[in-house]
Amino acid sequence: MSRGSLNDPRSAPVRRLRGLRRRATRAEERRFLVEGAHAVEEALAAMRHQHAPDVVVRDLLMTATAAQRHSDLASIAHEVGVAVSDVSDAVVDALSDTVTPQGVIAVVDFVDVSVGTVVEFDPRLVAVLADVRDPGNAGSVIRAADAAGCDGVVFTGDSVDPYNGKAVRAAVGGHFHLPLAVDAGLEGVVDAVRSGGLQVLAADGTGTLDLDAAGHEGLLAKPTAWLFGNEAWGMPDDVTSLADRVIRIPIYGMAESLNLAMSAAVCLFASASAQRSLDTKRFG
Amino acid sequence: MSRGSLNDPRSAPVRRLRGLRRRATRAEERRFLVEGAHAVEEALAAMRHQHAPDVVVRDLLMTATAAQRHSDLASIAHEVGVAVSDVSDAVVDALSDTVTPQGVIAVVDFVDVSVGTVVEFDPRLVAVLADVRDPGNAGSVIRAADAAGCDGVVFTGDSVDPYNGKAVRAAVGGHFHLPLAVDAGLEGVVDAVRSGGLQVLAADGTGTLDLDAAGHEGLLAKPTAWLFGNEAWGMPDDVTSLADRVIRIPIYGMAESLNLAMSAAVCLFASASAQRSLDTKRFG
Repeated sequence: MSRGSLNDPRSAPVRRLRGLRRRATRAEERRFLVEGAHAVEEALAAMRHQHAPDVVVRDLLMTATAAQRHSDLASIAHEVGVAVSDVSDAVVDALSDTVTPQGVIAVVDFVDVSVGTVVEFDPRLVAVLADVRDPGNAGSVIRAADAAGCDGVVFTGDSVDPYNGKAVRAAVGGHFHLPLAVDAGLEGVVDAVRSGGLQVLAADGTGTLDLDAAGHEGLLAKPTAWLFGNEAWGMPDDVTSLADRVIRIPIYGMAESLNLAMSAAVCLFASASAQRSLDTKRFG
Repeated sequence: MSRGSLNDPRSAPVRRLRGLRRRATRAEERRFLVEGAHAVEEALAAMRHQHAPDVVVRDLLMTATAAQRHSDLASIAHEVGVAVSDVSDAVVDALSDTVTPQGVIAVVDFVDVSVGTVVEFDPRLVAVLADVRDPGNAGSVIRAADAAGCDGVVFTGDSVDPYNGKAVRAAVGGHFHLPLAVDAGLEGVVDAVRSGGLQVLAADGTGTLDLDAAGHEGLLAKPTAWLFGNEAWGMPDDVTSLADRVIRIPIYGMAESLNLAMSAAVCLFASASAQRSLDTKRFG
């Protein structure tokens, strides 16, 4: 690919890219910015291996220093036909929303698919975020879902934009590892995952059944969509009422709760572990 | 208690309190600042109920608005003999390190105890942080340990100050719920927890045994000190070599890892659940 050069942060192309820091512009162009060598490498790797989800990197911007440090990125970009542009530190500063940017930014097409696609191929574990507002928390849930081997993550209700810079950073490449769906209609999402064969478990402190008991009952080994609510105000009744069961993480000490990302990690790993334990009993 | 009034952020008493935002000053005065109604309430409650740890709140600073909104705090403060001072928004801004301070700040004596005290009374579950640098992560681990019913948290090696404002906020009152020790000498800490009857499990991606297998082997039901390492560079060999076993959280998807707080939550809850499951089998 021919290498362009972008040095002026006030130039039209940079101003246009800078627009992608706003949700409205991202939604319009269906593109987002991915910062940092690790996340960019995951995007390029997904494009090279063509595993789901379908990832298309439009541009790779690197400062001279970053290009030297991460010469492997330029090679992979070249291999998959992604243009690499030299950029100045000032351009990176204009595009980045981190305090100490690494000098590596990719422009990537939205990766989200429909909820129907998420549940199409016999999913076993899906994370559904309802009205989650904090981008760091939301991104961390994507990371936890990715680690727990989930078959997808669905952002629903009035949740934060999963393409928000902070969410993308916290997900550490998760956007390029597992299917992601964005669909505001929570009831439709619940219907869709249920018709995909998943029970719906809502994680909430008001649950009458605790996670350990759910495990002992064999509930966690079943194909499951976990529903996680807002970090500050929890889950309103009209959301919990959509679930088959409301499960509470047992609090053994004096803390009131865990934060959302920690709750999601505990629930998703409890399910992943129970599902695999069942595999071992069946086939092991 | 007689109510004082502090309006000038440049006055000597406010400048002195502002010094507590620095680690060196905190260490010298052995006092720290606690922000927000919830955490302050937990500190006052601990003082009232005199449960371990031993908590002494020296001063409670509230703006007029906050005092109105949280009138219960002034009552509890009065009950336990803590002076309440009216402060201006400017004073709160000078003392706070949050963007939107709630107008409630307490000055509290350090709560940490020796590692010996943490392991004195037949502990079952302790979290040890070695070289953890990020205050938000460290505070979240305290919160997770608190929720999992740990008998204590130990900060060791070159870890962040647990009294750092961000760590205190992330712990959401955890400092006042369970014993906390600060001791730089990791080897001594490991010896101490081991002599307290705890096995030492290091959580690290290099572990040959995974958490699920450890559970099936019955390892997690034993009294345990979990060792958690730095969020960025993991655990060096000289740290893992101190542990009885190195345990890895199984990564079922494509993520490289979980973040430290999520890892700690998953490990601590796996142990808490296994230990209580054993109780049920024994006594249930």
